[in-house]
Amino acid sequence: MKVLIDGNVKEFRTLWMENNELYMIDQTKLPGKFEIYKCATYDDVASAIKNMIIRGASAIGCAGAYAMFLACKKFSSEKNFDKFMDKLRQSKDLITSTRRTAYDLFYTTERMLNVVENYLTECKNISKVVDVARQEAEKISRENIKACMTIGDFGNSLLKHHSKILTHCNAGALAMADYGTALGVIRSAHYTNKKIFVFVDETRPRLQGTLTSWELLNEGIEHCIIVDNAVGYFMKNKEIDAVITGADRIALNGDTANKIGTYEKAILAKENDIPFYVAAPISTIDKCCENGSSIAIEFRSEDEILNFKGIEIFPKESKALNPAFDVTPAKYITAIITEKGISKPNEIKNLNWEC
Amino acid sequence: MKVLIDGNVKEFRTLWMENNELYMIDQTKLPGKFEIYKCATYDDVASAIKNMIIRGASAIGCAGAYAMFLACKKFSSEKNFDKFMDKLRQSKDLITSTRRTAYDLFYTTERMLNVVENYLTECKNISKVVDVARQEAEKISRENIKACMTIGDFGNSLLKHHSKILTHCNAGALAMADYGTALGVIRSAHYTNKKIFVFVDETRPRLQGTLTSWELLNEGIEHCIIVDNAVGYFMKNKEIDAVITGADRIALNGDTANKIGTYEKAILAKENDIPFYVAAPISTIDKCCENGSSIAIEFRSEDEILNFKGIEIFPKESKALNPAFDVTPAKYITAIITEKGISKPNEIKNLNWEC
Repeated sequence: MKVLIDGNVKEFRTLWMENNELYMIDQTKLPGKFEIYKCATYDDVASAIKNMIIRGASAIGCAGAYAMFLACKKFSSEKNFDKFMDKLRQSKDLITSTRRTAYDLFYTTERMLNVVENYLTECKNISKVVDVARQEAEKISRENIKACMTIGDFGNSLLKHHSKILTHCNAGALAMADYGTALGVIRSAHYTNKKIFVFVDETRPRLQGTLTSWELLNEGIEHCIIVDNAVGYFMKNKEIDAVITGADRIALNGDTANKIGTYEKAILAKENDIPFYVAAPISTIDKCCENGSSIAIEFRSEDEILNFKGIEIFPKESKALNPAFDVTPAKYITAIITEKGISKPNEIKNLNWEC
Repeated sequence: MKVLIDGNVKEFRTLWMENNELYMIDQTKLPGKFEIYKCATYDDVASAIKNMIIRGASAIGCAGAYAMFLACKKFSSEKNFDKFMDKLRQSKDLITSTRRTAYDLFYTTERMLNVVENYLTECKNISKVVDVARQEAEKISRENIKACMTIGDFGNSLLKHHSKILTHCNAGALAMADYGTALGVIRSAHYTNKKIFVFVDETRPRLQGTLTSWELLNEGIEHCIIVDNAVGYFMKNKEIDAVITGADRIALNGDTANKIGTYEKAILAKENDIPFYVAAPISTIDKCCENGSSIAIEFRSEDEILNFKGIEIFPKESKALNPAFDVTPAKYITAIITEKGISKPNEIKNLNWEC
């Protein structure tokens, strides 16, 4: 992604390996400060995911894969195959316990575990499996970037010149290894010289709209911020032509878990005859999940609502409930854009799963 | 309304006259500090309305009436009837220019002007009209409180024991002279020993949910705060039985202007088969307004979104659009609760207008 630093444009990924450490853009510091956060161990990565230094379904999926590599590295002096695998499984449990709703994290850590296990079953060489794990983690990030670019190009075909698009939360480069899904579609439109305008909703309580506006400013894409409460107003006044969001987990029937408030935007879009698109790589589809009713929703601390940067917003005695995600039933989704193409929600289960 | 101060419960109105000054609870300081703000002149009051030291449709209506009394007092040395009325009309223009969407302010200031003009036409005694104006302003506040209590009792008949109610913004005692409309219904239910639970949404950007939670804490009514994005989640999970909001202006066909986001809650309620009630005194009904399309929507400063208590939330270069109200079409409103009873939106135009 483009990042403007002191007037110069530089290219960054959301996360990358350097000197055997995982580097990531610290998303808790944006948009005020651009800082790089370094993780030397897999539990550093788990803690960075938990504290949302890195967030976004695919970004934490990629971070989880790198964390599995760091775990392999840590346990590589272990001589016993079963003990090594036990330790790796425990690491996986720790990593996946950080965020429960997004599917990518479960997908990538399971994939890493299988690759390591298959290699060791054949070669029995624990010291060498570290390289294999690193290669697989790098491959997962590369695949994610390629998928985002393909999603961007497919999604772009849905957008007209002068489209005004609403996006919710941040499904941008920062939520992936790079490029983004919902913002990938918007990037592709921009790069093909379509004039577009983006409505960025705040996305309380964590205000991921700040990340989206930061990405759009870096790219030079015209946009404005609105509160989540104002989405309906602008839809009713015919100022929004399409909605594009990302996804944290997609069930086989097309029901989609995503950032809290997505369900609301989808209903508002339907009521105002506006197409509602979900853009996500197929690694977001949970093949064990028939429909949205079985998706576990993470509740986060009430402090995310009651306080803002250390300032008490609500009375001390107040309580809050803070679900971080909701499930949008497939009937509200016009189409799901993956790297395989543009599908109706009920066609998702028939996609070719090969990445 | 009840206010807990150092463990003791005291009774306050939102605004009252004392020593020829208008006293009001400073709503910009709540919930952190309970402070009283004093206005000596009508332009002090106009400025307090503009800066939301006092807010809420009827509260600013009552403040506007007191401001007209303060204007009468200021110009009472004027000997010429026409010049006096000209100055009073100019004061009215200044007062009503502060907030454009809520109807009460236009209704009360016009009523004050008419009462003063009628008195002077008969008696030609400018020094005495000051007393008449003060009495009329006091009457407007009393009528408002009585209307709220009646609305509360009518609305209470719609609520079952153990109801879970969502309210948006603050249509509480603080938005009226006292007691509240939406929160008046909730107070009446509480006072008749119904066990109820209130979902208080934040109401970005101004977070009027803080005022609502402050009132509910003072009354000892069980409640929790949720972000505006989570309303749909709790509705879909059958945790909300009814929605009650206030209104800033009601058109003759029942279309209702209210705080930004009300339209969204109404659509979400309809989609989830949840009744959506509007509670407001009939002074909120604009008899010159056939339907919602002609209601002017106030846009407020983008700083209300981009900054929070002096902290920059969004990048410096970001722009925001900040409509303060929206219009909910009558078709989404189950009933409108006024001091005349419970009406279908299309019955509003047939109500008896006498206060």
